[in-house]
Amino acid sequence: MRVEILTIGAELLLGYTIDTNAAFMARALSEIGVAVVRHDTVGDEPELIARAIRDGLERTGAVITSGGLGPTADDRTRDGLAAAFGRELLTDPEALAQVERRFRLFGRTMPKINVVQALVPRGARVLENRFGSAPALWMEDERGRWVITLPGVPSEMRGLLTETVIPILRERESAAPTVVASKTIRTTGIGESALAELLGEDGGDAVAGLPLAYLPGWEGVDLRITAAEMPAADAERALGEAARRLRERAGAYVYGEGSANLAGVVLDLCRERSLTIATAESCTGGLIGARLTDVPGSSDVYVGGVVAYSNRIKESMLGVPEELINRGGAVSEDVAKAMAAGARERLGADVGIAVTGIAGPGGGSAEKPVGTVWVAVQIGEDMRTFGRVYLGDRGEVRSRASQTALDTVRGMLTQPR
Amino acid sequence: MRVEILTIGAELLLGYTIDTNAAFMARALSEIGVAVVRHDTVGDEPELIARAIRDGLERTGAVITSGGLGPTADDRTRDGLAAAFGRELLTDPEALAQVERRFRLFGRTMPKINVVQALVPRGARVLENRFGSAPALWMEDERGRWVITLPGVPSEMRGLLTETVIPILRERESAAPTVVASKTIRTTGIGESALAELLGEDGGDAVAGLPLAYLPGWEGVDLRITAAEMPAADAERALGEAARRLRERAGAYVYGEGSANLAGVVLDLCRERSLTIATAESCTGGLIGARLTDVPGSSDVYVGGVVAYSNRIKESMLGVPEELINRGGAVSEDVAKAMAAGARERLGADVGIAVTGIAGPGGGSAEKPVGTVWVAVQIGEDMRTFGRVYLGDRGEVRSRASQTALDTVRGMLTQPR
Repeated sequence: MRVEILTIGAELLLGYTIDTNAAFMARALSEIGVAVVRHDTVGDEPELIARAIRDGLERTGAVITSGGLGPTADDRTRDGLAAAFGRELLTDPEALAQVERRFRLFGRTMPKINVVQALVPRGARVLENRFGSAPALWMEDERGRWVITLPGVPSEMRGLLTETVIPILRERESAAPTVVASKTIRTTGIGESALAELLGEDGGDAVAGLPLAYLPGWEGVDLRITAAEMPAADAERALGEAARRLRERAGAYVYGEGSANLAGVVLDLCRERSLTIATAESCTGGLIGARLTDVPGSSDVYVGGVVAYSNRIKESMLGVPEELINRGGAVSEDVAKAMAAGARERLGADVGIAVTGIAGPGGGSAEKPVGTVWVAVQIGEDMRTFGRVYLGDRGEVRSRASQTALDTVRGMLTQPR
Repeated sequence: MRVEILTIGAELLLGYTIDTNAAFMARALSEIGVAVVRHDTVGDEPELIARAIRDGLERTGAVITSGGLGPTADDRTRDGLAAAFGRELLTDPEALAQVERRFRLFGRTMPKINVVQALVPRGARVLENRFGSAPALWMEDERGRWVITLPGVPSEMRGLLTETVIPILRERESAAPTVVASKTIRTTGIGESALAELLGEDGGDAVAGLPLAYLPGWEGVDLRITAAEMPAADAERALGEAARRLRERAGAYVYGEGSANLAGVVLDLCRERSLTIATAESCTGGLIGARLTDVPGSSDVYVGGVVAYSNRIKESMLGVPEELINRGGAVSEDVAKAMAAGARERLGADVGIAVTGIAGPGGGSAEKPVGTVWVAVQIGEDMRTFGRVYLGDRGEVRSRASQTALDTVRGMLTQPR
């Protein structure tokens, strides 16, 4: 099944809102084998919305929209949908009851303004939204081409997509003779060209003819293989075999598949071994803690950390000797080691993770340019360090440093010396 | 001036990469008064790229693309651009020299694979990329319609857009009789409907007829006013006056304009008063530290913090009395206060910021449901607390809690009791 995504809202075109909805939708759809072949964003004008919907139906026959279902004057997706199908908008009693119920749930009376959320193009099916007030809509024409409109509030969109839309599409999909499916293998700690040298640019016999794409980002390089126009069972088998061979060849650089994230992998590895983690962060300023605690259930492994942004805190809270900082500077292998040891000891954890570096744009020198980072991880008697100069801006240096730190833990647990 | 953005890459359609490039481009362009009227994303096929470019030229006459300029087989923007204009691809000596220079800079010989990066449609202008190996291209037809292709690597795209593209567009724009310009006022601590009640849904006489949009997100509600089809000087004046009146009416909820971020605002307020900050984070797990240290130059204000994810760390590193936790639970006003006081004292800072809460999805109870958060901030003798239940998923609860914590500091400094 092939679909297009249409996100709606002037705020997206002004760049004040990063379109995370489109990515979430694309990922969730890809994971069930639905191919997102295009993504468009338009503003809040009904004519533009209608035209974009019609173009998408013409091209692909299936469009999922997000945004523009709110109660205010700039929420015009209902109008756009009605115009695209040449239908009139009517107040739907079921939709109205839903909106009213939603307000009652929070002990409030529905404001008059919200009545518009119950406007529905004639013939559309109302999908209940138990995450917010905007009902979602499903509209299909006589040729079987369809549009689903979802709200733009991320938690509402996610809830509806996962609970309502995906099951509907799965059912349709299972009736289809062939699918487009893909699998992603996530690597880190190796660059795109080195990985391509290792695997061959097209993946060689590992992928047995399936197209292979290299997707580099700050987390590492993802390998994506795609199986197109095959029966679902064949696609699954072909992808499974290719993934197994790629994992074999990429070896220790692989940390997971699909939506795996390195923080989650590290937490799982530690959990299996009953190890706890403490962090000591300088240039990453709490980012590693934030990434670990972003994973639900992290509290049984991660006990906490010290953000030692100033040298004084490195000394007072982590016990880094002042002379160590004076001798080699705060950004040095020795200080990173002392921070990791200090985190373990002071916070009473098995694994100590430390990062110190120069994220920029200021603070660099000829000897230690912007991007210089030292990572140290101590697990029991085993202490490993990693020093390098990252390219990129402040955000990239910090993100990459956090990834290296987590990957060092993974390496120590999966490849003991 | 009106432009469309076209981002290119299968990884975007799979959702593994969030399209931050589109948002960055949109924001940078909006800020100089260039209206982004549409954003499309297509995969790596030359025909789809060509069609999307042609459609954009037809609709708007100006397209800026990002992605697909790399050296590998799935980088097809050059081919798409050539096809859209019906031109052939030639190896451009200037472009080739640029690519070679880039590799020499890092002491490397250009790999053969990179020769394709010097392929340029006949008639295109090569824009030097000093941030990476892919030269950007500028292509214009006889009717003055144009396309600029930028690389997809964020740091390269940003560098080229800011240093090269924006100056070119500014020059063109200054020759134009009218502009579309907008201004954004950022508020936090008040919901969309309450703000609309305060200002009137259309902004009333404050905006003097300029369209007003309410843009809610986890950071708060942004107010955007737009001045369309006016001479640049008139637009600037009208926006300036409307912004001044809106700020007056929205009062203390306003923390900045345009791309202001609350962490930066708080750092500036503290810097002016020579105050230092320390954090004590439980459910936010380092997020507040990460947000503060994401701002360049934060080290003169932010000394560091403790991520006190476990209760033991709250006691040992922040001096929270055990009986306080036993009595009211770790998520309570008293524990938040003790954490804020502990952060100030143990880390030796003027401002102590503390957050404790239940981010979910687990850990909630009838008495303390998921989303329950307590914030405490202490500045000198002044201690303020804030407790509430946030809706949304784990990420939203954490983000909103971090925003409330920072906004509490702002409130205490700008509205002393």
